Amino acid sequence: MNNIRVGVIGIGNMGSAHARTLSSGAIPGAVLTAVCDAREQMRSWTQEHLSAEVPFWNDSDELIRSGTIDAVLLATPHYDHARLAVLAFDQGLHVLVEKPAGVTTSQVRRMNEAAAKAEGSVFAIMYNQRTNPLYIKLKDLIQSGELGEIRRLNWIITNWYRSQSYYDSSSWRATWSGEGGGVLVNQCPHQLDLLQWTTGMMPKRIRAFCQFGKYRDIEVEDDVTAYAEYENGATAVFITTTGEAPGTNRFEVTGDRGKIVIENNQLSFWRLREPEPAFNARFQGGFGQPECWRCDVPVEGEETGHPGIIANWIAAIREDVPLIAPGNEGIRGLTLSNAMLLSTWTDGWVDLPFDESQFDAELQQRVQHSNSVKKSSNADQAPADIQKSFK
Amino acid sequence: MNNIRVGVIGIGNMGSAHARTLSSGAIPGAVLTAVCDAREQMRSWTQEHLSAEVPFWNDSDELIRSGTIDAVLLATPHYDHARLAVLAFDQGLHVLVEKPAGVTTSQVRRMNEAAAKAEGSVFAIMYNQRTNPLYIKLKDLIQSGELGEIRRLNWIITNWYRSQSYYDSSSWRATWSGEGGGVLVNQCPHQLDLLQWTTGMMPKRIRAFCQFGKYRDIEVEDDVTAYAEYENGATAVFITTTGEAPGTNRFEVTGDRGKIVIENNQLSFWRLREPEPAFNARFQGGFGQPECWRCDVPVEGEETGHPGIIANWIAAIREDVPLIAPGNEGIRGLTLSNAMLLSTWTDGWVDLPFDESQFDAELQQRVQHSNSVKKSSNADQAPADIQKSFK
Repeated sequence: MNNIRVGVIGIGNMGSAHARTLSSGAIPGAVLTAVCDAREQMRSWTQEHLSAEVPFWNDSDELIRSGTIDAVLLATPHYDHARLAVLAFDQGLHVLVEKPAGVTTSQVRRMNEAAAKAEGSVFAIMYNQRTNPLYIKLKDLIQSGELGEIRRLNWIITNWYRSQSYYDSSSWRATWSGEGGGVLVNQCPHQLDLLQWTTGMMPKRIRAFCQFGKYRDIEVEDDVTAYAEYENGATAVFITTTGEAPGTNRFEVTGDRGKIVIENNQLSFWRLREPEPAFNARFQGGFGQPECWRCDVPVEGEETGHPGIIANWIAAIREDVPLIAPGNEGIRGLTLSNAMLLSTWTDGWVDLPFDESQFDAELQQRVQHSNSVKKSSNADQAPADIQKSFK
Repeated sequence: MNNIRVGVIGIGNMGSAHARTLSSGAIPGAVLTAVCDAREQMRSWTQEHLSAEVPFWNDSDELIRSGTIDAVLLATPHYDHARLAVLAFDQGLHVLVEKPAGVTTSQVRRMNEAAAKAEGSVFAIMYNQRTNPLYIKLKDLIQSGELGEIRRLNWIITNWYRSQSYYDSSSWRATWSGEGGGVLVNQCPHQLDLLQWTTGMMPKRIRAFCQFGKYRDIEVEDDVTAYAEYENGATAVFITTTGEAPGTNRFEVTGDRGKIVIENNQLSFWRLREPEPAFNARFQGGFGQPECWRCDVPVEGEETGHPGIIANWIAAIREDVPLIAPGNEGIRGLTLSNAMLLSTWTDGWVDLPFDESQFDAELQQRVQHSNSVKKSSNADQAPADIQKSFK
């Protein structure tokens, strides 16, 4: 099979790194044949950092329709993901979309529908944390039943420190019109995905408490505490912020066979000798609890990260290997973050699946009042109308 | 000054331990001169385990009025704490009350008013965890400003495993009429007190999610997730259950000078070299965060526990030393647990101070439908009418 001709659209922080990965020849079976960015000044970056043979495009739609690429990696601002993906699927291209899948689940649902129709197209999402052996092992321990029935999830992910200077670096950052959200859509998509991917569970309802511009001069959420309930009775707490240092990244999962904690790049497993319900049924001693073993579980393999996801996508296209992160799964993490925002905006429970038109209306209201121009901004993107994102 | 003549009312699990401590002469300046329990069968326990000279009383009110004691330690079921304390204060006795201070803040408020009127009486509460050097050090680091302005509290206290057999050991356990609550009023009063004592802060509002009889055949809450907001913008999450093993006891406190974690009987302090807001104001580098030091902080001293609190109470009576746990502070932790229940019952926010009559009405409704007789119960207490607790 010929090499897959890949175009990268959007060469900001992430897209430029992906373009260099592809340009370096690090991805077997792929060749970088185009980069595209609406900002003309990125043409010189391209000439400096990539092979001279890689053409630079200004217009993403033209590139997608050009016939010069088989596959496209979308690393544009979030609002453009879904529209460009749909266009690419219509052209029969393969698509790898950066996280988050999009800003609203209604957008992303249309993207997924287009992907489903484009039968030959391979659709993946850049959930590179799915290549992290710690979370692969956690998923294994949960889904094989070693941890038993899940009872509680608790993720404190507060080590996303971002200064005002970070937010001021681009006018679209941390605005409703530019990014469509804050720490939930920019920093946390990986954790929100892992929350559902490792456990295989989505909540039935969510109550969340987002605070907007609490620590920084920004419009969007920079501090979140969310509570979720699951069909099987399990509960979850998800806590995140960009305002704390040094912050914490600690994911605790409790099941009726014990608990697992991932913190400081280590997985710790406390295993009950017998399931808790079995102990409870037979025990007659008043005080007392199930025998518990602290187990050293081997965590092997290498985190292949972004190149791993790109290589897997190419291998799926060429050799039909299973995708690590199928693109249509991107809607799940986004459902969680949208529900957290909606719960805050409505100051109440959000049952899943939630009313997408209500979310879109609430967001649109904030987009209309969005002020995306910050003091030290160096970008020039106009505020978006999310209703027009498919027109 | 003569030795203080102490009576212990209620000689269940806790009261019997306190009676033995006093009887052994371990408390300087105190002499055990009476024990009291409504259960006649405890008379023989007294004769077996205590000095033969300690009289056994059946009727608490008679003992309080007898003139044979100067001070009373209340270790009765929760509902009786406030009524007996008020009676004792009216007789000019000193009072040490077991936790929780009572079941409802309205009860406890009347207890505190009676204490305030009884000028010569020393009123303390059995918050023995205030003698734990870890929490003394945490309080020191917070209140001296070393941790800076508090931003987030997170206490996961889920290592309270209790089997059905535990709950079945007494008919009053884990019933609305017998205990007036579950894990919040029985197991967690210490942590709820430490949450406010170490920080010096009470929330302005609470949203909580209690689940009742989730893991056991009981009426009351055995699983709680609570979220709180404070006047200074700080937030808190408090998570507890009696249904998990091995469970977790991890208290994380974040301030604008870093974070402290108490877990596994260790205090860890990550200290920022400069306060986060100062770093943020001067930093211009985009990504980047304040320099952070992992500090080994000495934690010295011994946890004196229950005997320490009893000895401190006696010393306060005899020598006017400051109380470790003034009795009137018992209402604070109870305010937190009542608010968590009320938020669940009303499925909404509870602003502090909350409407005590609403809480009392909600509780009374549950007391009326309470079924305190369990299969294997061995006690005989009748359901309480909380409105009659002062009659």
